Amino acid sequence: MNHEETLKPALIRRLVRYCHYIQARHAIECARTISSVEIASYTDVDESQVRKDLSAIKVSGTPRIGYQTPEVIHAIHHELGFEHDLLAVIVGAGHLGSALARYRGFEHYGLRVVAIFDTAPEKVNTVVAELVVEPIERLGRVIGETGVKTAILTVSPDAAEDIAHRLARAGIKAIWNFVPARFKAPDGVFIRHQHLSTGLAELAYFLKKAPDN
Amino acid sequence: MNHEETLKPALIRRLVRYCHYIQARHAIECARTISSVEIASYTDVDESQVRKDLSAIKVSGTPRIGYQTPEVIHAIHHELGFEHDLLAVIVGAGHLGSALARYRGFEHYGLRVVAIFDTAPEKVNTVVAELVVEPIERLGRVIGETGVKTAILTVSPDAAEDIAHRLARAGIKAIWNFVPARFKAPDGVFIRHQHLSTGLAELAYFLKKAPDN
Repeated sequence: MNHEETLKPALIRRLVRYCHYIQARHAIECARTISSVEIASYTDVDESQVRKDLSAIKVSGTPRIGYQTPEVIHAIHHELGFEHDLLAVIVGAGHLGSALARYRGFEHYGLRVVAIFDTAPEKVNTVVAELVVEPIERLGRVIGETGVKTAILTVSPDAAEDIAHRLARAGIKAIWNFVPARFKAPDGVFIRHQHLSTGLAELAYFLKKAPDN
Repeated sequence: MNHEETLKPALIRRLVRYCHYIQARHAIECARTISSVEIASYTDVDESQVRKDLSAIKVSGTPRIGYQTPEVIHAIHHELGFEHDLLAVIVGAGHLGSALARYRGFEHYGLRVVAIFDTAPEKVNTVVAELVVEPIERLGRVIGETGVKTAILTVSPDAAEDIAHRLARAGIKAIWNFVPARFKAPDGVFIRHQHLSTGLAELAYFLKKAPDN
C-alpha cells in the first residue's frame, strides 16, 4: 500500500482482529500457514473480505496452502506502524491509568509509557510501573522535552475536556480517551474514544433480553 | 419499546454515548434540558438520528426547549438494564483484571464484581478490591452458588478459549473478553470482545500517517 492511501478505521480494526487470531494460533500450535477460510471463520469476517484486506496490504496466499503465518503478522505490524516505538504519557494515575501503565499486553504494539501525571497531591511522587507520578503542572515541560505525541487520558469526566486542551497546547497529537465523557477534539488532535462502558452496556442488555433471565 | 423488539448493537452504542455526554453536562452545568442539536454535535451523530433514537426508547422533547435531562438519562438506563445489578466474576487477577475489579466507573452501570479468580498460586489468597483471589478450581462452585451470569476475562491469550468453555459449563451466559485473542463463543454464550489494542492500533496508524511525524 503506497503512502498516498490511507486505511479506513474498519480495515484497521479487521487487521488487528486477524493479527490477534493468527498470533494466538501461531503461538499455541506453531501453525506455519493459515487459510483465509480459517481466519474468516474465527474473526466473523467474510472470507472474500479477508482475502481483499490481506491483498490490500500486499500479502498473497498460495492456493490450497494458504498464507505464511509469520508473513501475515509482519505485514500487519508493518502496515499499522507497530514496529516503531509509540511513546505516550498517561494523565490520571487512578486504578485504570495505573493498570494501563503496568499492562504488558501493549508491548507488542510498541507502546512505551514515558510519564504519568495526576492532579491529586497524594498521588504525586508515588511510583507506578517504575515511573514517579508527576504533578499536572509538569505536563507541558515533559511533553516538550520528550517530544511525545500520544496521551492516554484516564482522569475524571469533569476534568477530561480541560486536560485534553492542555495536552493539545503542549504538543500532543493523538489522545486515547478512557474517560466516559464525550467532548470535541482540540484542533489538529485525533481522539480515539475507548469507552469501556459501551461493552458493559451490550452485556447488560444481552442479559436483560436473554430468555432464561 | 416493547419486549419483542431488540435494540441493535449500534443503537446501544449510540445510547451509551448520549448518556455519557448528557450525564457530564448535567453534572458540570446542572443543565435541566438539552437539545438534539447539542447532543448530535458532541456525539458525532446526525441530529435526525438522535431524535429517532430517543423516540425509539419513548423519550420525547419539547420544541424550542429540548429534552428533560434527567428523563433522558433515566430512560437510557432503564432501556439498557443499568438499573439492575449486573453481578460478574473476573477471571485473571493481573494488572488489568485487578484494575477492572477496583474501577469505580462501572458502578453507574450496575456492575458488581462478586469474585475474582486466578490460576497462579502466588496470586491466590491475595486481596483485590476487598475480594480474596480464588483458585480457578472454585469457578464452578462459586458461579453455581451465586447464580452469576457474567464473566470478565483477563487471562493470557493461550488460556482464554479453555477458560471460556469452563465458564460456559459453569453457567455463564455473557463474557466480556479483554484478552487479545479471538475464539468462538461456546454454545449459548454471548461474547463481547473488548480489544484495547484496536484503539492503540488506530492511534499508532494515525501518528504514522500524520504529516509532521
